[in-house]
Amino acid sequence: MSGNSIGQLFRITTFGESHGEALGVVIDGMPAGLKVNPDDLARELKRRAPGQHEVHTSRKEEDAAEILSGVFEGKSLGTPITVIVRNTNQRSQDYDPLKETYRPGHADRTTMLKYGHRDHRGGGRASGRETLARVIGGYFAGLVIPGISFFAYIEEVAHFRLSGPPRDHSVDRGEINIPDEALSATVVAFLKDCKVKGESAGGVVTISIRNAPAGLGEPVFDKLKADFAKAMLSLPACIGFSVADAFSTARLPGSVMSATSSTFGGMEGGITNGDEIVLKLAFKAPSTIGEKAKAGRHDPCILPRVVPVVEAMAKIVMADHFLRQSAYDSFHS
Amino acid sequence: MSGNSIGQLFRITTFGESHGEALGVVIDGMPAGLKVNPDDLARELKRRAPGQHEVHTSRKEEDAAEILSGVFEGKSLGTPITVIVRNTNQRSQDYDPLKETYRPGHADRTTMLKYGHRDHRGGGRASGRETLARVIGGYFAGLVIPGISFFAYIEEVAHFRLSGPPRDHSVDRGEINIPDEALSATVVAFLKDCKVKGESAGGVVTISIRNAPAGLGEPVFDKLKADFAKAMLSLPACIGFSVADAFSTARLPGSVMSATSSTFGGMEGGITNGDEIVLKLAFKAPSTIGEKAKAGRHDPCILPRVVPVVEAMAKIVMADHFLRQSAYDSFHS
Amino acid sequence: MSGNSIGQLFRITTFGESHGEALGVVIDGMPAGLKVNPDDLARELKRRAPGQHEVHTSRKEEDAAEILSGVFEGKSLGTPITVIVRNTNQRSQDYDPLKETYRPGHADRTTMLKYGHRDHRGGGRASGRETLARVIGGYFAGLVIPGISFFAYIEEVAHFRLSGPPRDHSVDRGEINIPDEALSATVVAFLKDCKVKGESAGGVVTISIRNAPAGLGEPVFDKLKADFAKAMLSLPACIGFSVADAFSTARLPGSVMSATSSTFGGMEGGITNGDEIVLKLAFKAPSTIGEKAKAGRHDPCILPRVVPVVEAMAKIVMADHFLRQSAYDSFHS
Amino acid sequence: MSGNSIGQLFRITTFGESHGEALGVVIDGMPAGLKVNPDDLARELKRRAPGQHEVHTSRKEEDAAEILSGVFEGKSLGTPITVIVRNTNQRSQDYDPLKETYRPGHADRTTMLKYGHRDHRGGGRASGRETLARVIGGYFAGLVIPGISFFAYIEEVAHFRLSGPPRDHSVDRGEINIPDEALSATVVAFLKDCKVKGESAGGVVTISIRNAPAGLGEPVFDKLKADFAKAMLSLPACIGFSVADAFSTARLPGSVMSATSSTFGGMEGGITNGDEIVLKLAFKAPSTIGEKAKAGRHDPCILPRVVPVVEAMAKIVMADHFLRQSAYDSFHS
Repeated sequence: MSGNSIGQLFRITTFGESHGEALGVVIDGMPAGLKVNPDDLARELKRRAPGQHEVHTSRKEEDAAEILSGVFEGKSLGTPITVIVRNTNQRSQDYDPLKETYRPGHADRTTMLKYGHRDHRGGGRASGRETLARVIGGYFAGLVIPGISFFAYIEEVAHFRLSGPPRDHSVDRGEINIPDEALSATVVAFLKDCKVKGESAGGVVTISIRNAPAGLGEPVFDKLKADFAKAMLSLPACIGFSVADAFSTARLPGSVMSATSSTFGGMEGGITNGDEIVLKLAFKAPSTIGEKAKAGRHDPCILPRVVPVVEAMAKIVMADHFLRQSAYDSFHS
Repeated sequence: MSGNSIGQLFRITTFGESHGEALGVVIDGMPAGLKVNPDDLARELKRRAPGQHEVHTSRKEEDAAEILSGVFEGKSLGTPITVIVRNTNQRSQDYDPLKETYRPGHADRTTMLKYGHRDHRGGGRASGRETLARVIGGYFAGLVIPGISFFAYIEEVAHFRLSGPPRDHSVDRGEINIPDEALSATVVAFLKDCKVKGESAGGVVTISIRNAPAGLGEPVFDKLKADFAKAMLSLPACIGFSVADAFSTARLPGSVMSATSSTFGGMEGGITNGDEIVLKLAFKAPSTIGEKAKAGRHDPCILPRVVPVVEAMAKIVMADHFLRQSAYDSFHS
Repeated sequence: MSGNSIGQLFRITTFGESHGEALGVVIDGMPAGLKVNPDDLARELKRRAPGQHEVHTSRKEEDAAEILSGVFEGKSLGTPITVIVRNTNQRSQDYDPLKETYRPGHADRTTMLKYGHRDHRGGGRASGRETLARVIGGYFAGLVIPGISFFAYIEEVAHFRLSGPPRDHSVDRGEINIPDEALSATVVAFLKDCKVKGESAGGVVTISIRNAPAGLGEPVFDKLKADFAKAMLSLPACIGFSVADAFSTARLPGSVMSATSSTFGGMEGGITNGDEIVLKLAFKAPSTIGEKAKAGRHDPCILPRVVPVVEAMAKIVMADHFLRQSAYDSFHS
Repeated sequence: MSGNSIGQLFRITTFGESHGEALGVVIDGMPAGLKVNPDDLARELKRRAPGQHEVHTSRKEEDAAEILSGVFEGKSLGTPITVIVRNTNQRSQDYDPLKETYRPGHADRTTMLKYGHRDHRGGGRASGRETLARVIGGYFAGLVIPGISFFAYIEEVAHFRLSGPPRDHSVDRGEINIPDEALSATVVAFLKDCKVKGESAGGVVTISIRNAPAGLGEPVFDKLKADFAKAMLSLPACIGFSVADAFSTARLPGSVMSATSSTFGGMEGGITNGDEIVLKLAFKAPSTIGEKAKAGRHDPCILPRVVPVVEAMAKIVMADHFLRQSAYDSFHS
């Protein structure tokens, strides 16, 4: 009820403060008998990890995942899967001056207003670090729906924008998840410059989902687009959600809008129609700027690391709706 | 679980097909002892009703609300409040040709794919008519949080756009919920023309929420912005959600973005900070166009009637989070 | 959240005060395409209705069920099914003296302590009349699991006790649901005498469930026995729950207990094993006694009317667990 | 949804197989600012631990609890509290012969029927070992409701029965939780003899709850008695639940039953009335008997160790209902 869980049949519960002992996730509702590959899980975590690229925070963490339950002899048991990651690189003393400091745009002040007590060493639960638990959840969600393909990438950073046709799921996403070599190089240079200047940047991440079966999503409050919106807006720094190009589509006359089914973004009435699903997500620039950003262990732009998290959230939503629909398979087919 | 409920402590469950016997709502979690005024409820329903303005569908319905439970001697009992509205104007025969027709952008086809059976006389549960149940829920939600002010209005229709500073909650919203006399007249003329031509239009609705107490919203999945996003994207035709000007804010450098707190849209870390909350919602144009739109009982643009529904959804989310936080008041203060 | 719903995938929400406008139920999670027979529904309601037998309250109600949503052309739509029953026979004036009276063993006083406001004309939500909404829910639950057989009957009233082997589901349950002609006649005479004297009686209801598939129920908190216990203890006047003869079985040495599988009551580890499920439920005598009971419209013993309600609750629990398990059918088989 | 969570506002999710890496619990909905004392937690765990008394299994485990999240500087943060206990004494090889053996009365066979895959080394999730996670949850629940007193003890073992008046919460419960010196000695001797013979015994545990505020519990499905019943029946081997002496009370005439309020067991209409709450729980004898019981690491009777688990479950239910009611405090008082 305190909102650390998401999903109905496939449900993840995350726990852990950014500077506590460990972060982790409990995945309930996993089917039994699915093969679990720890190397694949480690690879997903590495995609999100800090320190992978020089445009990121210098905070290097190993993020070694330990599976505590729910897997036996390499296969899921159908019981809750719990995975934890120890915080090995806490260096709390770095953060002592923050005890009395509320960073704008962070949850620091609102956490105090809400609870009257907080772990001042970091963002607590509101930290970007919490998202590693979501990536773990996403890995297991993916095992439930192996036939559906998820592909996210950066479409905009600051005033830079990817152009051209939509990306195929097999293209190389490059070193920072921008699937265009020239633009990627430009943005890398821009972000390095941001880091030097203590500046930061936001942008837009796009996700494409292919091969989703038709009929997923519920007709009223649990429309698939609604559950996607909730999942994405629950990400730190995410401030906008759009089915395909929603804010442009909104300006189109009905005759134009309905002439091409791609404006529907793969959903009609909130239910999948079998077409490609396309979602776009706006992320604001990190609030940490100036001297603090130059000195500290901060990302000038979180988008490169957000890409695998967006995929994870999409997988979690789809696995949940897949199981929800499966409950009725014997009746509706 | 089939997604006809929303909210945790303050929870509404809606029911009814657009052309069935009745639509309605069960409101569970209502505090006891609150005064209920049927006239106020009727006024809210009238704001959403068809036939209020010549730019709307000619389908005129009375939408008379009947309270079946939960209210005694003019006050809530703390038990479920159930309100129904009979469908008095079904005229099913009008819809017979639709039996084999799947309207693009509607749930017609996806409903058949999902259930293998549908009420072809209308949109069923995916119909805009379902939203009257949400308006009823919103009226009762408003009683839980009387100190919080909600004000929604149309910001864009097609290529028309409201300019100037944000609107005060006391301004006149005009005949179609555009709080600018000149623009309102222009858009009314435009929509009349759409109706003649069988064209349709989408746009953007903005909602401002004032006097929300700080500390509402949960730090992870149930961030207030996430629950707002879900509530809004659960509306038919809603395809985009934005905290303040998200897709523009995403392009701002951190130094600019964090220089003005209004870019935070009243929430930090997903929790209210006491500032004004501003959300923007993109709606696509109705898919019904051409001869069918000219002949039928359809809105060329749903935005004027969506405004009270957006307010209702915002109230439902806020009432729920207010009660959720209240559970901890004795501990956290 | 205020506890007017039960079930996860198959979920019913009941509403209505005993002396308000109407009582009813919303059934969410119903599969689409199932044939609905209003006559069958009416028959189930009649089994629970007052005034069917002279040992009952003289309060005669028609309990005409009206289906408001979720059924089209005789089949379920997969959308919420809402059914209401108007309270035609309220006669509120009969209850005016009760305004200041808190009946012992009823919710009268605790309702005031909890809410500070109540509908004094009857038991409000805690009334036995609320159970008609459960019978409606049970009818629809039964459509989901047509192959499972439910058979409840009275095993004890006061000091009278049914003896002999377990009852076959096809035997005649007699006029008051005691499947033994001689005992039934004795108890009818006893209850008539109770009515004359203003006395009341409690007892035990047994339910047998046959042909349940193996594998239903979840291993930890949602064990099938746990969900049955909750469902049954949620009935007014129900104060005890027992898997088979629990309180006798508890005294058996393990060597005797495990020698016969019938002591397991059809569940091992809280999961069905395919055997017959047997549950026994203790109900206390109505608290209304003396002059009030002689004068009023009260049952000296509610057990004869509780039998169909017990079956309904069992069906609701089983339909829910059946759907929950179905979600994993494609993985686990 | 797979049933590894219980509670609404105060919710625990348990995880871990009896012979996996670790067991644990996530507690969501804990208020912030409450003092956490690891020694108190360890003491509760020790009460449940095996090897405390010679009548128990010889399987000695340390059950060292590690708090991974949610506590900072000795106080709760309001974030999820996760506690794990490593399985240090797995000795899986002892269990190899069990791979193909389904123990009667255990979940072994039903787990295979349900999932098609299981951890044959022990009871998996259905093991009594899972209950240590509940004891941890109960410790934290107790911090939420420090004014309410919980006292459980053994009332019956096999044919031995505690007599005399109800026990005060301050009496010594003796070495095996039987608060009567003579009876305790008799039962200890009896259980030692059981162990020698490979026999096992069940019985009845009683719990008394004092100082509960009036008004807790919801009027329909979430009656307090219903949530207690679910919580208790979710315990392994628990097969019966009774409010006070339900199955005896059921035989009393209404005139006798309602003459003494103690028959109501502290609840009227499912809501606390401020009186002492008394619940009785039947547990069957362990199914493991004969040579296996003599050789193995098994309890001839689980009741002595179940007592702290029963208290934990009661605390979890009460903490949840206390918070649920608190959400409405500002309205109803």
